[in-house]
Amino acid sequence: MRVIKETRQMFRLTEALRRQGTTIGFVPTMGALHDGHCALIRAARRQSRTVVVSIFVNPLQFGPREDFTRYPRDLTRDMHLAKAAGCDVVFAPDASQIYPSGFCTSVEVAGLGDRFEGAARPGHFRGVATVVAKLLTIVHPTDAWFGQKDYQQAAIIQRMVLDLKVPSTIRIMPTVREADGLAMSSRNVYLTPEQRAQAPALYRALSWGKRHILDGERHAARVEAGMRRMVQEQPLLDPDYLAVADAKRLEPMSAIRGRAVLLGAVRVGTTRLIDNVLVDVP
Amino acid sequence: MRVIKETRQMFRLTEALRRQGTTIGFVPTMGALHDGHCALIRAARRQSRTVVVSIFVNPLQFGPREDFTRYPRDLTRDMHLAKAAGCDVVFAPDASQIYPSGFCTSVEVAGLGDRFEGAARPGHFRGVATVVAKLLTIVHPTDAWFGQKDYQQAAIIQRMVLDLKVPSTIRIMPTVREADGLAMSSRNVYLTPEQRAQAPALYRALSWGKRHILDGERHAARVEAGMRRMVQEQPLLDPDYLAVADAKRLEPMSAIRGRAVLLGAVRVGTTRLIDNVLVDVP
Repeated sequence: MRVIKETRQMFRLTEALRRQGTTIGFVPTMGALHDGHCALIRAARRQSRTVVVSIFVNPLQFGPREDFTRYPRDLTRDMHLAKAAGCDVVFAPDASQIYPSGFCTSVEVAGLGDRFEGAARPGHFRGVATVVAKLLTIVHPTDAWFGQKDYQQAAIIQRMVLDLKVPSTIRIMPTVREADGLAMSSRNVYLTPEQRAQAPALYRALSWGKRHILDGERHAARVEAGMRRMVQEQPLLDPDYLAVADAKRLEPMSAIRGRAVLLGAVRVGTTRLIDNVLVDVP
Repeated sequence: MRVIKETRQMFRLTEALRRQGTTIGFVPTMGALHDGHCALIRAARRQSRTVVVSIFVNPLQFGPREDFTRYPRDLTRDMHLAKAAGCDVVFAPDASQIYPSGFCTSVEVAGLGDRFEGAARPGHFRGVATVVAKLLTIVHPTDAWFGQKDYQQAAIIQRMVLDLKVPSTIRIMPTVREADGLAMSSRNVYLTPEQRAQAPALYRALSWGKRHILDGERHAARVEAGMRRMVQEQPLLDPDYLAVADAKRLEPMSAIRGRAVLLGAVRVGTTRLIDNVLVDVP
């Protein structure tokens, strides 16, 4: 497995590969790899001749009071995991490679990024869209894999790629979960044992909401209130939002119909966890 | 010469060409071609195996009270001129090709676009950066040519390409002028004979400013006041800004040093004309 730190070198490698007609699968990550990332890498492996995994903790997508400095970093461990999952090339640039001196360009997707995570984390999705636009230009993959866990992020990236005509196909893979249902996340390591024990209530609440809708409930407000109550039963969980939204436009629904997404975010101490489930209403 | 209207077809053509190692020169235009555009096309011709000219009147870069609807359009004439200058492929998409339904992504370059044209035309440079980012992705040229006449636009595009790691080299060509010094512009056709007769005062004022600086003047305010006076001598010209700025950061200077750009914009009836000259101070 190769490790590349320089943007120019990364670009030249995939440029040469694409010229030969090689398919390139790309999994952008911030490192701290877990089974969710590895599932993305394995999916890329199955469909691509060359698999590139980027490891870059993107300062632009963290707010000033967020966990940029304490975000877990362990390049050696990440490289072993990436290799085992089938990665050919790790792209691990420094921030100066991605954000040269005087950097001042941003990519923004209006509308889709306004609510939920966008409301809770101002500037977050601008940071995400900007770095993903750059990474897709540098790696120019045939396909790029993202996890459904970051549902709003995935929707924004799909929209951006469509709008800017980026010649890569975006593929979204199902959320990978712990045995008790907690969505895999690099931030789970922040949790104390007590917090960890209560954290699965987020997924339980979303699953309850989904079942309730499939059983015939069509009032979003009732589903949302029920999900919130379930989260609040856990004293260490502080719900931010628990919402039913249109799965495509990410706008709130009052009467549930078509494809909906149940989105949740909770604060657990200083950690923030998110999760979501999809539900199709006939 | 080929004419392509579809984004996908354009992308595939240049993708195939680049795979063969062919250099692609690109001149993005809004049509209404004049000798300035033709100089860009000829420059692209000299350096590239394949020359692509786009003709697209970009709605996103016009303000609600600007001249989008009356902007001159004559595709047949433009195609003849482009061909004569050495163009191989004209890319002439409809707006629906460039801005599909639900389009909501934008590219913005902070700072450089705040003053001068950016202040006079809110949203203009966001529209320019967004469409150029898209066109560079669709055409993915080796080199793209722009005119110095739109100095601030050229600076913004160069910054965007650097920041987003767009793999094209941006080349800026000198402004082409009429015999009396007026910068060539598609908007010159709007001028009445009386307005046309007074319009060259903008370039005369900028040239006077440059000469004055080369003669030793270092106070930007004095140069600016002198240029404004010269423009105001023409009763049909209404100066917007006449300014001395740092040529790189496009920030105003009080004491002139290094490389400066003298920027001017004037209103002539309902038409707006811009121009600029560079000056190096030892």
